[in-house]
Amino acid sequence: MTDDRRDLIEGFLFTDQYQLTMAQLYWKHGLHERTAQFDYFFRRYPDYGRHQAGYAVSAGLGWLLDWIDATRVRTEDLERLRSQRCSSGKRRFDEGFLAWLVSAGGFRGVSIRAVPEGRVVHRHAPIAIVEGPLAMAQILETSFLNHLNYQTLVATKASRVAESAAGGPVLEFGMRRGPDAGTNAGTRAALIGGADASSNVGVSHALGIDPQGTHAHSMVQLFMAMGDGEIGAFRAYADAYPDECVLLVDTIDTLESGIPNAITVFEELRASGHEPVGIRLDSGDLAHLAVRAARMLDDGGFPDARIVLSSELDELAMWQIRAQIVEEAPRYGVDGATVLHRLTYGVGTRLVTSHGFPSLGGVYKLVAIDGSGEWLPAMKISDTPEKMPIPGDKRIWRVYDDRGLATADVVSAGSEDLSFGTSLDLFHPHREGITRHVEHIADVEELVVPVYREGERLEPDATLDEMRGRRSADLERLDPGVRRLVNPHVYHVSLTSTVKTLQGDLIARSRRSI
Amino acid sequence: MTDDRRDLIEGFLFTDQYQLTMAQLYWKHGLHERTAQFDYFFRRYPDYGRHQAGYAVSAGLGWLLDWIDATRVRTEDLERLRSQRCSSGKRRFDEGFLAWLVSAGGFRGVSIRAVPEGRVVHRHAPIAIVEGPLAMAQILETSFLNHLNYQTLVATKASRVAESAAGGPVLEFGMRRGPDAGTNAGTRAALIGGADASSNVGVSHALGIDPQGTHAHSMVQLFMAMGDGEIGAFRAYADAYPDECVLLVDTIDTLESGIPNAITVFEELRASGHEPVGIRLDSGDLAHLAVRAARMLDDGGFPDARIVLSSELDELAMWQIRAQIVEEAPRYGVDGATVLHRLTYGVGTRLVTSHGFPSLGGVYKLVAIDGSGEWLPAMKISDTPEKMPIPGDKRIWRVYDDRGLATADVVSAGSEDLSFGTSLDLFHPHREGITRHVEHIADVEELVVPVYREGERLEPDATLDEMRGRRSADLERLDPGVRRLVNPHVYHVSLTSTVKTLQGDLIARSRRSI
Repeated sequence: MTDDRRDLIEGFLFTDQYQLTMAQLYWKHGLHERTAQFDYFFRRYPDYGRHQAGYAVSAGLGWLLDWIDATRVRTEDLERLRSQRCSSGKRRFDEGFLAWLVSAGGFRGVSIRAVPEGRVVHRHAPIAIVEGPLAMAQILETSFLNHLNYQTLVATKASRVAESAAGGPVLEFGMRRGPDAGTNAGTRAALIGGADASSNVGVSHALGIDPQGTHAHSMVQLFMAMGDGEIGAFRAYADAYPDECVLLVDTIDTLESGIPNAITVFEELRASGHEPVGIRLDSGDLAHLAVRAARMLDDGGFPDARIVLSSELDELAMWQIRAQIVEEAPRYGVDGATVLHRLTYGVGTRLVTSHGFPSLGGVYKLVAIDGSGEWLPAMKISDTPEKMPIPGDKRIWRVYDDRGLATADVVSAGSEDLSFGTSLDLFHPHREGITRHVEHIADVEELVVPVYREGERLEPDATLDEMRGRRSADLERLDPGVRRLVNPHVYHVSLTSTVKTLQGDLIARSRRSI
Repeated sequence: MTDDRRDLIEGFLFTDQYQLTMAQLYWKHGLHERTAQFDYFFRRYPDYGRHQAGYAVSAGLGWLLDWIDATRVRTEDLERLRSQRCSSGKRRFDEGFLAWLVSAGGFRGVSIRAVPEGRVVHRHAPIAIVEGPLAMAQILETSFLNHLNYQTLVATKASRVAESAAGGPVLEFGMRRGPDAGTNAGTRAALIGGADASSNVGVSHALGIDPQGTHAHSMVQLFMAMGDGEIGAFRAYADAYPDECVLLVDTIDTLESGIPNAITVFEELRASGHEPVGIRLDSGDLAHLAVRAARMLDDGGFPDARIVLSSELDELAMWQIRAQIVEEAPRYGVDGATVLHRLTYGVGTRLVTSHGFPSLGGVYKLVAIDGSGEWLPAMKISDTPEKMPIPGDKRIWRVYDDRGLATADVVSAGSEDLSFGTSLDLFHPHREGITRHVEHIADVEELVVPVYREGERLEPDATLDEMRGRRSADLERLDPGVRRLVNPHVYHVSLTSTVKTLQGDLIARSRRSI
């Protein structure tokens, strides 16, 4: 892509038109610099059809903050906005408004509190809270949602895939079918959420890890076309990469050609002082072929050779493949657990497209506006109670029980501090009369923390290891029922009585005002 | 995003690791500059579950060629590759190979023939053919697939949405839930495939069209929080945009509050000499609300006010909404056809994520390699006949019948010229014994044409209008049964007898070589 176009489409104008028309309206009414608060949250965990998530993994914040840091209103952006005309022929954007955009200095005037990347997050409770001049916080919405929705979606899927792999390595292979340049964000999110490595060269290097990959069918086809056959291709590969030899065995026929040829080449490799790494299966009944391959590799003297599986894998397919392997293995005289132990999973398209649930649906909602020093709460009234956001300035907490497990995420008013509480009354975020009393709080932590304030990052960029560590720590403290792949147990997200009362008052007031 | 990182992850290293390891293997074997041919094609039309596509719309080529033009091996890329280590501790990439990468000058050594963007394309028949030095054509695979798969997927969905809109304007609104930066490609593809305009400001300007958008719920909430109510918000909007006034009427209650308030403000607007544009419905039973809104706007004296629908729309939802409107309209004393005529459709998430079929699955397969001046055909043998590509150098043709409709896409050998044929024997691409005789060819055109040769674009960039024009022209010449939204009729893609014979020979030869 040319740099000019990239700056145009990935810079300040990476937004929806209505953000700009609303921002100008606020400017015309003198409201543009009024401090506003917007909450970012999602309402539904991913439901992939035959299986469902009971939690999500937050991702995308690092790249969002980079974008905010780097984005300015450029002269070229102003020219484009000047070129817009109303149907009357008049310019759509006033020169005074454009001058204000420039003077505001991009989005550096906003402050952001957020859940750090890699942490487990839940529906309804804000994952991020933006505070800043109304017009700029409004224009930011599109990019904000775009950056966080997709990465959180993919990190969540990756976490499920990793759980399904039960400790086996997971490799992200999705670039070829990922969504244009967005696939880079998909790779990053997959690595935060649970993938151990990726085939994506650029992003792996950007994150400081080694990209993974061996060869494709085309290499085998090439040697076949030149008359050297599959074994010629395998020999060429072993010769070029004697210490990293993983051979793709399904170009012709996995059991009749691929594995026997691989074993021949593995023997030659060993004779020359190198140990082969393994084989890759990319088509057919992967469970059956893994069992057969394990037996053949055992018999050939390569019991440690790894078996890499790829081809339309996701958490459900992996779960079923593992179950089938345990069932089929004894029939071929191999131990199922041992086969499982040598598996590596290449997960591609279904990971980066979040197969079955392609969009998180996170929203960015105005919840409060400054009214001469105090917050005026705002909310959208809806006939669907689930669609009503939680109004006003707030703080978000995670409460742990005596087992050390997270028992609820709690939304309190901005003025409430739950740090020192020992017991708590909780209220359902959308239904009336559903309450819960937590008798003994073992521990409580504030989830949404300051990350950006008026142009400054408040924390250094987290490393990939740190983000992955947050995810593991959170999963260990999450009820196994909530982590279940199918029909997970519902995690509690609740309001304090103060917030519940405010919500009720606002609903009543809005209904009266119709 | 910082420029450094963007260059790293969107430049030469925007590829899968195995492309680089294979390329080095070719270099080690002296095969890297051997001319190779790769075909790009897809095997399945999108199947969205309850509805299916019978054709696709090609998109993405323009941006792919821009990427090829702009991409060079940078010093920073080489440093990353130098940093990679094998498990033995040795460097993975040889300095000689890296030097060759630099000398090759990026991907400018490849030549590309392709179907122009916007044209209707079909499964199995190559949409693009890449010819060039083996190692570079191999490394190109990932970016090639990434650029074409996603845009073709979204352009196809957009075309179906436009067909379902039956002439009503379609607006693309998907940015907020699109896949990170990939959403820009989604917007572009939607505009090529059938969307009339988009809310995406940057991409609209890059393509020279006016971005569309009015206001969101947040604006109404804001005025409500300040005590001015929904009508205060509407007045503010009408005041700021008197000639482009579209009001979102569902923040509180569409029928009780939103539409009555909108009509009040429309009357004030008209009194001040401006005509309102319309209203937008974003929740609830859109069909029912559209009928009720039409009646209320008619009664209020605004029979020309448009009704914009949004909220989880796709081709099937739109089709059902239109049917329900026709059925419900008489009950409220309005004419269904008139209501349909005033609809505009805002289509977002389901368009840019291609809801129900999130990835095209296009592949890039080695089909021939130069063997001292003649093409050696290559193919992957598979137990699934549908998975066998069509081997060898080839040309792609579209054959029209006496009605002026396309009757088949035909793959011929590179040496065959179908331009002057009057009749033709056609063979099924994957099954034996299925043939068809076309008695009279009314017209034939070559579909895949040269677009890039050794660093040069052979055609100027197509304008958006040109790409849209190709789509309309192709749709007009496509059998209505193939365009059907559900269970479309199967379009014929066939081989000439020369190609069929070559395919049979190769299968037999590969099977013998096991």
